[in-house]
Amino acid sequence: MSIGALYGVGVGPGAPDLITLRALHVLRAADVLALPRASEHAASTAWRIVRPTLGDVPGQERLLLTFPMARDPERLGSAWRKALDAIGERIERGQSVAFVTEGDPSLFSTFIYLQREAPLRWPGIRIEVVPGVSSLAAVPAVTGIPLADGEERIAIVPGAYGVEDLEELLDRFDTVVLMKIGPEMPRVIAALDRAGLLDRAVYVSRATMTEQRIVRDVRTVAGERGDCFSMVVIAKKERAGLLVPTLTGLGLGTGLGTGLGTGLGTGLATGAVHGSPPATKRHTP
Amino acid sequence: MSIGALYGVGVGPGAPDLITLRALHVLRAADVLALPRASEHAASTAWRIVRPTLGDVPGQERLLLTFPMARDPERLGSAWRKALDAIGERIERGQSVAFVTEGDPSLFSTFIYLQREAPLRWPGIRIEVVPGVSSLAAVPAVTGIPLADGEERIAIVPGAYGVEDLEELLDRFDTVVLMKIGPEMPRVIAALDRAGLLDRAVYVSRATMTEQRIVRDVRTVAGERGDCFSMVVIAKKERAGLLVPTLTGLGLGTGLGTGLGTGLGTGLATGAVHGSPPATKRHTP
Repeated sequence: MSIGALYGVGVGPGAPDLITLRALHVLRAADVLALPRASEHAASTAWRIVRPTLGDVPGQERLLLTFPMARDPERLGSAWRKALDAIGERIERGQSVAFVTEGDPSLFSTFIYLQREAPLRWPGIRIEVVPGVSSLAAVPAVTGIPLADGEERIAIVPGAYGVEDLEELLDRFDTVVLMKIGPEMPRVIAALDRAGLLDRAVYVSRATMTEQRIVRDVRTVAGERGDCFSMVVIAKKERAGLLVPTLTGLGLGTGLGTGLGTGLGTGLATGAVHGSPPATKRHTP
Repeated sequence: MSIGALYGVGVGPGAPDLITLRALHVLRAADVLALPRASEHAASTAWRIVRPTLGDVPGQERLLLTFPMARDPERLGSAWRKALDAIGERIERGQSVAFVTEGDPSLFSTFIYLQREAPLRWPGIRIEVVPGVSSLAAVPAVTGIPLADGEERIAIVPGAYGVEDLEELLDRFDTVVLMKIGPEMPRVIAALDRAGLLDRAVYVSRATMTEQRIVRDVRTVAGERGDCFSMVVIAKKERAGLLVPTLTGLGLGTGLGTGLGTGLGTGLATGAVHGSPPATKRHTP
């Protein structure tokens, strides 16, 4: 008997209708859904996302796997041993297993460890990754602030592991995304304040979920401990896309002229776009 | 009569089944599909992506908009003036317009300029962004190389605007994504060679499309001019996720032990994970 296939399926940031057709198709066809949850008592967010569109598939098993939201190696290791044994039992009897991940499976996802371990545990196993809409796409969509355009550069940093060099990152990148903020908010706010970029930051928690929170004055969340679903995006927007200076120069429309003066970004209003050195120079030390 | 709404709809990286349910729903309901294309003679990639799942919607107009793949301000400005006029005509007579973008609308997309311009041209307009699966998710899925895990940091750089500081970026970030490579491949390869990271790079063009190309020896594409759909990802993987050293320490499985010696990353094999300083120190100048 041949072993079953393993799928890492991204189901999007939270809103059930942000799942892809391919994810739905793969989930419907799988023998087993592997659904991560944060504790024995917690509901699985992954299941909450797919339930409205997938529902109960006849004959399909839902395998709940508990991964504590902890950095304690002992607890995580023990959780993974149990998870790998449970998944392995099914794969070895020829069942296909779809591991469901929120967002995208290739970006800070629980699936990544399984993806690395699987070919070692089950040689020759077929692994397929179904990409999903990540919070990197969801947060700009709900805030209305694009992540990057034109020649802009982006730094993505898992905040919980340290933001001590945030000011330097803000100096060198147009957009800085702090994922998994953890207890670092006071430090983030202090750095933004020093850099004069407090008004360019937005805090978003659980984008596109019903509990979504968008906080445009990040100082008001200084006392909160962000979770895995919290993100701070700082988009300087000092270097707009290729077009703005051009279209302005061409006198494209009065609307654009008005916007430049009223809130489209201080960089534009002060002429920084025209005056700034080229990107290649700007980022060279 | 009230003006129509504007939607920026991400339809994913190329494979038609990587569209979301929400995107399909919004596209089906729109009065007008605005479909960008690169020239008067070129087919619209956006339309090619949505056609198999959307098909012909009765009464829906398909408005083809030409945006030359050029950095010439004059040509781009002229293209945008025409596009804005055409979209405005429809919005002002109350029609809803869905602007279809490949990938995600908030990341280096043609929609971004429209998103900024629309509220100035048509005050009070309702704008909704439907996030999509971006190439940042598609490329890791098709290569099997996760973008980032654990404490890893990512830099995203539009390559066509300069990669002169690539070596410094490679030193400071775990994963570097070069989008829109343009004519910079020889320079990229030279920098990777100097940094000893040639074997950590992969070149991907048109991920998930039928023309998809994955090149694991990037030196073989030195002579090619990458287009908008080409990307180079360098994933050092010297700092694995939180778990690997732990599980190894716990003696989790022989499979893992084998993997460490055979190809799971030189960092792990040489013990660099255990020996490296914490992330916060590492990135401080």
